[in-house]
Amino acid sequence: MAPKAVVLLSGGLDSATVLAMAQAQDYELYALTVEYGQRHSREIHCARAQAKARQVAQHKVLHLELPDSRASALTDAAPLPPAQPGSAIPATYVPARNTILLSLALSWAEALEAVDIFIGVTAVDYSGYPDCRAAFIRAFEELANLATKAAVQDGKKFRIHAPLLDLPKHEIIRRGRELSVDFAMTSSCYNPDEQGGACGQCDACVLRLKGFQQAGLVDPARYA
Amino acid sequence: MAPKAVVLLSGGLDSATVLAMAQAQDYELYALTVEYGQRHSREIHCARAQAKARQVAQHKVLHLELPDSRASALTDAAPLPPAQPGSAIPATYVPARNTILLSLALSWAEALEAVDIFIGVTAVDYSGYPDCRAAFIRAFEELANLATKAAVQDGKKFRIHAPLLDLPKHEIIRRGRELSVDFAMTSSCYNPDEQGGACGQCDACVLRLKGFQQAGLVDPARYA
Repeated sequence: MAPKAVVLLSGGLDSATVLAMAQAQDYELYALTVEYGQRHSREIHCARAQAKARQVAQHKVLHLELPDSRASALTDAAPLPPAQPGSAIPATYVPARNTILLSLALSWAEALEAVDIFIGVTAVDYSGYPDCRAAFIRAFEELANLATKAAVQDGKKFRIHAPLLDLPKHEIIRRGRELSVDFAMTSSCYNPDEQGGACGQCDACVLRLKGFQQAGLVDPARYA
Repeated sequence: MAPKAVVLLSGGLDSATVLAMAQAQDYELYALTVEYGQRHSREIHCARAQAKARQVAQHKVLHLELPDSRASALTDAAPLPPAQPGSAIPATYVPARNTILLSLALSWAEALEAVDIFIGVTAVDYSGYPDCRAAFIRAFEELANLATKAAVQDGKKFRIHAPLLDLPKHEIIRRGRELSVDFAMTSSCYNPDEQGGACGQCDACVLRLKGFQQAGLVDPARYA
């Protein structure tokens, strides 16, 4: 019987590739999408399409109320401020986001009697988010093995897989392509139009477009 | 100006005492209650009463959908199984609960520019929950200082305060009494009746009643 894995699936290019990678490793897939008031529903739509394409055993979409949605430009109702390349951690940082997402994934994994959790963070083109670094991932893994009945009583070992951690965007795109990820059904833009078309100008779009260019491919996503 | 603290407030005896302790240390209080499908609303009612009594700066009640509510006897719709004293980690264990609660508290703390988080876990009468131990609390504190912009970019240090960690229940009750906690407005029972009266028989009730007895006090809560 294939081991189960919980895969955090945002609907972006990175997590869609991670889902494909987990499938290629023969895990039974449990995809977890958390809707925490991101600026657009296009991501959720893409997450559903990716989960369907991979025939996951279960796809769960949780709605999460953040303690303070005004604390991030990504969840605030106000217009997104212009990108400031080279500046410190960007305004789209959501306080403790990946800690919350991994906690929910851990809870589900323990309930499923799974020990493998996949997350599509990358530290190369990582825009400076502190919770996308290897040190954070390792610390969460240690925490998971202290926090749970499965680890403490039953001696199981949770593993947090972050297979994109050291990959630049164009390398992620190449891997995704090898695994037949439909990139048209992935959403990266922070400011999509009402039909879900990407703006082509925000940090996330710029990074994505450069990645496709360096991979020698054309981005099939729709731009506004 | 008083420093801000986020205090996890369940509405039970322990967290009500922690709220009073944080107030006695002159923090400005931000109380966080998370409604994750516990078996009764009496706890939320008590949390509101405690927050009001302490005149907190803000009390936030978040509704959280757990990935699998059937994974714990505390959140499952089925009747609670009888207590099995002396057995391993009890059926009321909720997968990764305190990891999730602390993650949400951390998110709010960072948004508030606070670094102090209080949680009412106790490892003495702790029923065996793995996420009520000192090792877990320390690991979460380390994680918080790797996970956040406030720590990584701004050099702040988050502190997770667990002032009840080494206290037996009767000692917690004594401290609470010194700080004028209204124990009538705290709820510990896993199986309250429809009017919120405690059953007097579940693990939590037994522990509570023994604590009052050892403290030489009468529990003012209403029993069914």
